[in-house]
Amino acid sequence: MKHVSQLKLRFLSQKPVEKAEPDAFSNDPERHPALLVRNAKPFNGESPPSLLTDHFYTPNELFFVRNHLPVPDIKTEDHCLTVETLNGKTIDLSVDELKKKYKSYTIGSVIQCAGNRRADMNQYKKVQGLMWEGTAISNAEWTGVRLRDILADAGIDVFDEKIKHVHFEGSDVDPTGTPYGASIPIEKARGNEVIVAYHMNGVDIPRDHGAPLRVIVPGNIGARQVKWLRRIIVSEKESDSHWQQKDYRAFSPAVNMGDELKWDTVPSIQEYPVQCAICTPAPNTKVNSDDGTVDISGYAWSGGGRGIIRIEISVDGGETWSSCEMEQEKKQDLDHMYAWTLFKAEVKIPPIVKEFNIIAKAVDRSYNTQPETASGIWNVRGLIHNAWHRVPIIVKD
Amino acid sequence: MKHVSQLKLRFLSQKPVEKAEPDAFSNDPERHPALLVRNAKPFNGESPPSLLTDHFYTPNELFFVRNHLPVPDIKTEDHCLTVETLNGKTIDLSVDELKKKYKSYTIGSVIQCAGNRRADMNQYKKVQGLMWEGTAISNAEWTGVRLRDILADAGIDVFDEKIKHVHFEGSDVDPTGTPYGASIPIEKARGNEVIVAYHMNGVDIPRDHGAPLRVIVPGNIGARQVKWLRRIIVSEKESDSHWQQKDYRAFSPAVNMGDELKWDTVPSIQEYPVQCAICTPAPNTKVNSDDGTVDISGYAWSGGGRGIIRIEISVDGGETWSSCEMEQEKKQDLDHMYAWTLFKAEVKIPPIVKEFNIIAKAVDRSYNTQPETASGIWNVRGLIHNAWHRVPIIVKD
Repeated sequence: MKHVSQLKLRFLSQKPVEKAEPDAFSNDPERHPALLVRNAKPFNGESPPSLLTDHFYTPNELFFVRNHLPVPDIKTEDHCLTVETLNGKTIDLSVDELKKKYKSYTIGSVIQCAGNRRADMNQYKKVQGLMWEGTAISNAEWTGVRLRDILADAGIDVFDEKIKHVHFEGSDVDPTGTPYGASIPIEKARGNEVIVAYHMNGVDIPRDHGAPLRVIVPGNIGARQVKWLRRIIVSEKESDSHWQQKDYRAFSPAVNMGDELKWDTVPSIQEYPVQCAICTPAPNTKVNSDDGTVDISGYAWSGGGRGIIRIEISVDGGETWSSCEMEQEKKQDLDHMYAWTLFKAEVKIPPIVKEFNIIAKAVDRSYNTQPETASGIWNVRGLIHNAWHRVPIIVKD
Repeated sequence: MKHVSQLKLRFLSQKPVEKAEPDAFSNDPERHPALLVRNAKPFNGESPPSLLTDHFYTPNELFFVRNHLPVPDIKTEDHCLTVETLNGKTIDLSVDELKKKYKSYTIGSVIQCAGNRRADMNQYKKVQGLMWEGTAISNAEWTGVRLRDILADAGIDVFDEKIKHVHFEGSDVDPTGTPYGASIPIEKARGNEVIVAYHMNGVDIPRDHGAPLRVIVPGNIGARQVKWLRRIIVSEKESDSHWQQKDYRAFSPAVNMGDELKWDTVPSIQEYPVQCAICTPAPNTKVNSDDGTVDISGYAWSGGGRGIIRIEISVDGGETWSSCEMEQEKKQDLDHMYAWTLFKAEVKIPPIVKEFNIIAKAVDRSYNTQPETASGIWNVRGLIHNAWHRVPIIVKD
């Protein structure tokens, strides 16, 4: 019985992936060898943690990749973005028209997979999904045009009370021809920060990251920031796509592996809660006790534009804390901080011990904090793990 | 040395209160005897927990009271609300004019003191401030006019980029004549939900709660929802009031009692993070093991309009959880939920044990959760304690 239910869970949450033919991935782009591959087809690769904190904006080739389906191969000049109104009327835009018609904006914004740090949660208690460690997250400068301006041009009144959601459809399709899709609430969609991007860190968006167009929804999980964007639809309802309705929803810890998953009892994840992780040193790094200190680096970020107000570390299990030096995007204030915060600290090696944990945690502008362990946030799909990050260190004599 | 620093801390954080003459409180209103008095002058009283969850909207006489200064005694017909622009121009409004000139709105919204549950935090490690237990929070229906409409009428363009904050000044003054004051960011101020209220649960606002006018800032801490409102000022800067600049900021746990408090290194608290507490049964309630179950009730709430998506309880220290039945305001959706969520559950008494803790915690719409203990959020002023709420229960044979 348990076995059948587990199969059901796997089917519900990974259906399109499992149906895709291996050959469909043969035209995927080349990837940087430093990416840590978590799945080959579709490609899912994590940024190398030892390199991630070297750059405030992650170089495109080191930006983590989370694909659900084979990567489309689109000639920019042939691409068409269609915008559909409530009445089903449409306008079509070429990439060139889009660039010419609307004002361009550049915003520094994190993309983080809702499954980042799932491997950590799996250590607490087994979960199901790709075993991301702590770097299914990166930060880039995106350039594009405001979604709001495109909607207005299509004759859509973004304050029309009938419009509740904006759907996005990608050019990536499963073997049945169904495209990847997701939606966001209209109130987010009409905000200053949501753009249809064509540049990533100043160059054309690479194929793996959505060439030629990707919607950037700063402050929300990556799954809503649809790549290879080909269609925008305003609607009274959420997207009925698999990834909106039957995935990316975190159940209660009362729902166990094998239980029936009542997807409609849980809202789709949009904003990410406060997150923080150490990137260097790696877990189980060996240090010499007479070095005195260990240098650490990492990132913190929170959803909804809520800037990080502090990052603290502890080496005694949370009894005492010290604050870290932080690097932030100076153009963004604490109420509109979509880029991440990098941090550094020189950690004193505790006397006598043979091993210790470095713990890091952050506080956001609304004073949201992280739970100490996965105990209260564990969920069958291993989503949004944001417990205190612990890195074990081994002390040599 | 420590003693001097502690005095300094007390001075900085309670200055206006300590200077007020006891006689200044002789004209304070009568209060309901069920309120749990935490300080007599100025009056600070907590709602009785055993009555609080009986009503979705707290009756006015049971609504918790948090006063910083003596209660003004204002004749409504004499009251004048002054609105000041960036150039120092002003308009004056009587309460009657305010009611006639603008459209009225009613909103269900919680007020919670940023010091709610401070007594809990004090148990973890000593903090300084009024020892609120868990019911410095209540929920009411407020009726008034949109702040945005008043600002527009004063000729203020709420999208003017020079305007960053809106200040509020109360009619309550300290012995030097300085009024209570606070401010909120302009982006919050121009939102649909912020109103200047004249009714609380359908009747004129009682004296203790701000008669005749109080600004309601749904989703923010109580300290920003200025009572006895007499002046509104738009500004490039935050309010320079004591309560904005030198109080209501939660320091790092690295800052200890007696340390210098560098107030400008910490942002003023605006939105509250996710909170949850059990109201009944009281701590150390005795139950019979053959009763089988205990009925519990409580509340949960989060700042920024982020609705509560679930409330879970555990009787085994967080190993396993079960979900509670919730009561919510049906007119408010999960992205605009300013009223609280009440909850109930029938808790199974664990077998064999002589005592156990009932633990409650909540998850908000952005999947924010609460920390397990005060370890990572402890701060000298004991602000925003939102760790898992634990109620010890004693089991009789």
